[in-house]
Amino acid sequence: MVDREEALELHSKNPGKISVEPSVEIDDAEDLGLVYTPGVAEPCHEIDRDRENAYQYTSKGNLVAVVSDGSAVLGLGDIGPEASMPVMEGKANLMKKFGDVDGFPVVLDVQDTDKIIESVERMAPTFGGINLEDISAPKCFEIEEDLKEKLDIPVFHDDQHGTAIVVKAALENALELAEKSLEDSRIVIIGAGASGIAVANFLVNAGAEKVVPVDSSGVLDPESGNGYKAELAEKTLAREESGSLEDAMEGADAVIGLSTAGVISEEMIESMAEDPVVFALANPEPEIMPEDARDAGAFITATGRSDFDNQVNNSLAFPGVFRGALDARATDINEEMKLAASEAIKNFVESERDKIVPETLDRELAMDVAEKVEEAARETGVER
Amino acid sequence: MVDREEALELHSKNPGKISVEPSVEIDDAEDLGLVYTPGVAEPCHEIDRDRENAYQYTSKGNLVAVVSDGSAVLGLGDIGPEASMPVMEGKANLMKKFGDVDGFPVVLDVQDTDKIIESVERMAPTFGGINLEDISAPKCFEIEEDLKEKLDIPVFHDDQHGTAIVVKAALENALELAEKSLEDSRIVIIGAGASGIAVANFLVNAGAEKVVPVDSSGVLDPESGNGYKAELAEKTLAREESGSLEDAMEGADAVIGLSTAGVISEEMIESMAEDPVVFALANPEPEIMPEDARDAGAFITATGRSDFDNQVNNSLAFPGVFRGALDARATDINEEMKLAASEAIKNFVESERDKIVPETLDRELAMDVAEKVEEAARETGVER
Repeated sequence: MVDREEALELHSKNPGKISVEPSVEIDDAEDLGLVYTPGVAEPCHEIDRDRENAYQYTSKGNLVAVVSDGSAVLGLGDIGPEASMPVMEGKANLMKKFGDVDGFPVVLDVQDTDKIIESVERMAPTFGGINLEDISAPKCFEIEEDLKEKLDIPVFHDDQHGTAIVVKAALENALELAEKSLEDSRIVIIGAGASGIAVANFLVNAGAEKVVPVDSSGVLDPESGNGYKAELAEKTLAREESGSLEDAMEGADAVIGLSTAGVISEEMIESMAEDPVVFALANPEPEIMPEDARDAGAFITATGRSDFDNQVNNSLAFPGVFRGALDARATDINEEMKLAASEAIKNFVESERDKIVPETLDRELAMDVAEKVEEAARETGVER
Repeated sequence: MVDREEALELHSKNPGKISVEPSVEIDDAEDLGLVYTPGVAEPCHEIDRDRENAYQYTSKGNLVAVVSDGSAVLGLGDIGPEASMPVMEGKANLMKKFGDVDGFPVVLDVQDTDKIIESVERMAPTFGGINLEDISAPKCFEIEEDLKEKLDIPVFHDDQHGTAIVVKAALENALELAEKSLEDSRIVIIGAGASGIAVANFLVNAGAEKVVPVDSSGVLDPESGNGYKAELAEKTLAREESGSLEDAMEGADAVIGLSTAGVISEEMIESMAEDPVVFALANPEPEIMPEDARDAGAFITATGRSDFDNQVNNSLAFPGVFRGALDARATDINEEMKLAASEAIKNFVESERDKIVPETLDRELAMDVAEKVEEAARETGVER
C-alpha cells in the first residue's frame, strides 16, 4: 500500500504536479517583438480571418481541459473543486508523459448540470479537447451528451469511456484465456454510476448478450431508477431477471466491480461458473482483495491498483485516445474510435493470467492507441 | 518593424507558445501509485479537510489564468476569443520566463459582463490569481471590481494596472530628467479606455494635480460619458476645462497617448511647455512616431514598441506583480502593491533620456518588483 507521508511529500514538493512552460524561447528584444507586441498581431489577424487557423498558430490543438466539479472523486465522493485538483493534475501529468498532450486542470465551483455545461462551453475556444472527470452520475451523462452536441471539439468523460475501453480489452483477453466468448459469457457488472453504465453499454454494443447490471438495490429494474439505468436494463438480462447481487453472481463467467470496497464475498465467487474472471476495480479499496478472490476459485483477477497484477487503469487509454483525436483534429470521439482504442490495448499484450493488460507505464502503447484512434477518426469522417 | 512571415512562422512551429509539463516525474509503478491512484487520495483528503491546503498540495498557488473575451485586443479591437489566444499565450510565456509564474490562457466565448464575471468565478478554485486581459472598456471596470470583491485570490486587469504601474515609473523618471515634478506638471492623457482611465486615476492617486484626460471627443465632460469617465473628470482639470485635444496640449509638460495611431501632430508638440515628455503608446502604430516627436521638440519620447528606445511595456510589471502576490498568497493586489511595483521599476534604472525604464528582458527586475510587492502585501495585511 502507498505510504501516506510519501504521497503528501511528493505533492508538496513543487507543490503540485504540473507546470506551464514557454515552448518558444525569448532571448532578445527581437524575439520579444515576435512573441509579444507587435509581432503577435500577425497570428491574431490570421485567426480573426479564419477561426480554424487557431490550430495552426496557437496551442489550442494540443490543449485538453481536464474538467471536474469534484462531485464524485475517486472513492472519496463529493469533495468539491479544490480537493479534486490533485486528481486533475495527475491526469494532466500523465497526458503529457504518455501522450504528449498538454492537459490542464480546470476545477469548477458549480455543481448544477446546466451551469457545468455552460462553463465548459464558454471556455471551449481555448482547447482542442475536453476531458470530463469525476463528475457524479447521472448528471455526467447529460453533461457529456450535451457538450458533444454543442462543441466542435472532442468531449470525453474518462470515468465512463476510459474505463469502458480498458475493461473491454482486459475482459476479452481474460475470457480468451478462460476459453469463453464475450457473446456467451454471463457478465455481472456491479455499480450503475458513470463507469458501470458506460462499461455495460460498451460491452453490449460490442456484442455481449448476457450482461447483468446490478446496483446497490440488486439487479437493475427497467421500470425504475434514472433514465440511464432503465435504458440499460432494457438492453441486458435485467429486462427479464431480478434479485440480489448474490443471485446475479450465480453461474456468472465474469464479474466487474465498479462500486465500493468489500461488496464481493468469497461465497459469491464460489457460486460462479468454471474459471471465473473477477475484476474488483473499486479504488482505493477493491470489492474483494485479489488473493481472497483467488482463494475462492477466481481464475483471473484484476484491480484498479498499481500494487497488484492486472491493473485495469484508465491511464492505459486516455493519453492515446486524446493523442489520436488531437492528431486528427477530430470534432468528436465516437464509438468507432473507442473500439479502436480498446482493440489496440487488447492486442498490445501476449496475454497471460497475470498479464491481461499492458503495463501502465508504456509510452509505446499510448502511441499505438493514438494511431488506431486517429485512423478510426479519419475513417468515420470526424477529422478536420 | 517586425516581419510578418517571421512572426507567423514562430507561432506555427510547435504550434503556439506554451506547453504544460509534468513537474513530478513518473519513472515506475511506485511513482504512478503516488501521483495517481491510490496515492493521490491523500492530498485530496487534506484539501477536503481544509481548502487552504490546496496551496500546499497543488499547483493552484502558482497558477494564474490569463482571461480574455477577445473584445479589445491590442489595436485590433473585438476579434473574439480564438483570435485573442496568441496574446494570452504570449502573456503566459512571459509570466514564466520572467516571473516563474505558471500563466495559462483561458479565452471565453462570451462577452456579456455578468457572464464573464460568472465564468471566472466558477473556474477560480483552480487558480492562485486572475489576470484579466484585453477586455473592452467600460465593462472591464465592472468585471474587475466585482471579481475583486467576490474572489479570495488576486484579480488584476493588466491593461489597466500593468500599464499604469509602468507609465507612472517612466513618467516620474522622465519628469525628473526635465526637472519637473509630478504634482505640478500638466499631464494630458489621450484615451479613456481601460488603460487611459487607469493611468489617470493612478497618477491622480499618486499626487498629480494637473491631469487632463481627453477622449476622441476632447477633454472629458464631468456631465457625460460613462460613469468611469465622469468620475475621473471630477478628479482632474477636466472638471473646469473643456475643448479639443489641441487645446489641452497647449502648455502641457507631458502627454501620454493610449489611443490610436497618428492622433498627435507635430504642431501639438510645438505648443507644449519646455522640454515636453511625449509617450505615444498606441500599439502597434504610435500616436506619433518618436523621430517626428523629437523633430518637433520632444525632450523625451517613449512608445510601446520594442524597436524604439524607452519601451513602456506591461511586461516590465506583470511578471513581478504576480510573483510577489503569489509569494504572499495574497488575497488581493491593492493600491499599495501597485505603488510598490511602480517604485521598484522607477528605481531600477539610472535614468537617462533614452533609458527612462529598465530593459524588458531583465529577470532581475521582475524579482525586485516581486520582493517589493510581496512586502507591500504583508504590510497591508492581504497575505495568507
